[in-house]
Amino acid sequence: MKVDGKQIRPIWLDNDNVVNVIDQRKLPHALEVMTLTSVDEVIYAIQEMVVRGAPLIGVTGAYGVVVALETTTDQDMFRKACQRIKDSRPTAVNLAWAVERMLDNISYQNPAQERLAQAREQAGRIAGLEVDNCRRIGEHGAKLIADISKRKNNAAVNILTHCNAGWLACIEYGTATAPIYMAHKMGIDVHVWVDETRPLNQGARLTAWELGKQTVKHTLITDNAGGYLMQKKMVDMVIVGTDRSTYTGDVANKIGTYLKALAARDNDLPFYVALPSSTFDWQLTDGLKQIPIEERDPDEVRYIHGLAKTGVEKVLLTAKDSPALNPAFDITPAHLVTGFITERGICPANETAIVELFPEKR
Amino acid sequence: MKVDGKQIRPIWLDNDNVVNVIDQRKLPHALEVMTLTSVDEVIYAIQEMVVRGAPLIGVTGAYGVVVALETTTDQDMFRKACQRIKDSRPTAVNLAWAVERMLDNISYQNPAQERLAQAREQAGRIAGLEVDNCRRIGEHGAKLIADISKRKNNAAVNILTHCNAGWLACIEYGTATAPIYMAHKMGIDVHVWVDETRPLNQGARLTAWELGKQTVKHTLITDNAGGYLMQKKMVDMVIVGTDRSTYTGDVANKIGTYLKALAARDNDLPFYVALPSSTFDWQLTDGLKQIPIEERDPDEVRYIHGLAKTGVEKVLLTAKDSPALNPAFDITPAHLVTGFITERGICPANETAIVELFPEKR
Repeated sequence: MKVDGKQIRPIWLDNDNVVNVIDQRKLPHALEVMTLTSVDEVIYAIQEMVVRGAPLIGVTGAYGVVVALETTTDQDMFRKACQRIKDSRPTAVNLAWAVERMLDNISYQNPAQERLAQAREQAGRIAGLEVDNCRRIGEHGAKLIADISKRKNNAAVNILTHCNAGWLACIEYGTATAPIYMAHKMGIDVHVWVDETRPLNQGARLTAWELGKQTVKHTLITDNAGGYLMQKKMVDMVIVGTDRSTYTGDVANKIGTYLKALAARDNDLPFYVALPSSTFDWQLTDGLKQIPIEERDPDEVRYIHGLAKTGVEKVLLTAKDSPALNPAFDITPAHLVTGFITERGICPANETAIVELFPEKR
Repeated sequence: MKVDGKQIRPIWLDNDNVVNVIDQRKLPHALEVMTLTSVDEVIYAIQEMVVRGAPLIGVTGAYGVVVALETTTDQDMFRKACQRIKDSRPTAVNLAWAVERMLDNISYQNPAQERLAQAREQAGRIAGLEVDNCRRIGEHGAKLIADISKRKNNAAVNILTHCNAGWLACIEYGTATAPIYMAHKMGIDVHVWVDETRPLNQGARLTAWELGKQTVKHTLITDNAGGYLMQKKMVDMVIVGTDRSTYTGDVANKIGTYLKALAARDNDLPFYVALPSSTFDWQLTDGLKQIPIEERDPDEVRYIHGLAKTGVEKVLLTAKDSPALNPAFDITPAHLVTGFITERGICPANETAIVELFPEKR
């Protein structure tokens, strides 16, 4: 995407097989690039959320496999490194998917240089696939926005989103934001309600910044406010991303998504989930019982980073001894989801419809 | 309540008719007392949320009338000052209720000193009434907790609360916390999930601090997490306070309450609202249409205060130019409320039941 006139992606692999990533912990106060030259650094970047978002975690995993191959010639150590990358975060299914796809396409019989070239090519294909998928998600989803715009006689379409499922979470366009960027490009009047998304404020820090840079109208709100805005008819639709969805339609996404789905249902508003097919889990049938929910450091709740006069500061929000709990995702059951926006089109959130769209995955 | 062995209230009137209040903006990092010696200072304290919470705002209004009487002998100026106090925040009905009650009980025919004594006495009665009411709310509500405890064979009862409806919001005991403190005193094993309650974090700053000081087990969570905890059967009941409830059962409370009520309903969990009868609005029938919802400064969303190494700092959470919106309350419709816990007992959230409990108010 273009930021201040310059084309940029959240991740790229340079000619020396070094992974470059935007350090998303620093946004919006600074746009800094971090280089990852070892498997440990790749895992650090994933776990500490230097990179985050299901498609981007997947691509980071793919590039991580290239780094593993670059830094060890021992097959056993390489396999172990790949397994560690795969296990570095539990919820997003894209990570395991991308690492496995890499392994399927690297032949250890080939000489080291050829293997590396193979791996680079395969990682590039995975990244390219995510870009294509997001573009198509944008095209399909924009039609939904266009329909609402028409129904409203071209008045602004108000879309609520939670967390960041923007280009920063993907490679280009984003998932939830792709239809928004596409509609904006088509000249449709769109306005986005951006949930701040505590504890790590991906909405306040990333989505609001992204939308601002693309001149999309938006307003930041607390995570508490969305239900009220729906009650007051100030929201036309909800679009969110997902870290993993079952092929039966249950959606794991950033903690708090479920509350917005309940409010959308209570106010008869469409609630869409935008995702590339790499985010579907084709093994699981019951999101609530089967999708592992990551529990992160309670200090992410107790402390927050913000820009003080002296620079970015970490500040304590609570009494020093207050205990806290920090589950990172929740499950929105299929029956609350109006539909999935995928690279192949839009479908209802049920097994029959999903499998009909992706028959080869069954 | 006792804090570190010392008895304290969030507000008291000293012999010189100066109002003393705990500056709740400074908690939990500092326990500071602010003195209010003019009507302007009383209004500042209410608007800037030095004091907050419906019953406490009411008592501050009552003491504010004493300050108005102390600082002017002109009847017209006094009336105007009272009106300004009444209008200083729009949502909590206790403020108007308390100021009107004061005016009803002050006779301007009496000499100035007698009037002042009358006003002091009446303000004290209002404060005393709130204390009595909160104690009774605690006694009635504790029975609900005891029942759940028995059903769980004395395993910990997990109660979720939003915002601060504790003694800091009242005078003693609190509203939502009164049943919790009472159950804790009775030896029932209780554990409280404390919503942080963005944007002003009354949960993280005040409720967690309060419960800690009374040695009640509690865990701080983001506002996003409650739905997930309910899905995972980690919540037994919800108890919240309210800033204004219609006599038909609609509940205005801190923004985000409605989302928790939806989640409680979706997970078949009891959702109780604890309130003294002074918080009922006996005029309104439709909360969503009729209760005015205060919209506060968007900078409360964009900035946050926290404890840095150098002391309390205000930090920016978003890009400098991100627009924000900050509605302070939402409406939980009566059909999502299991019941009201009042000083006269527990009743379902409907007109018949509420009026049956308070027949003299109709």
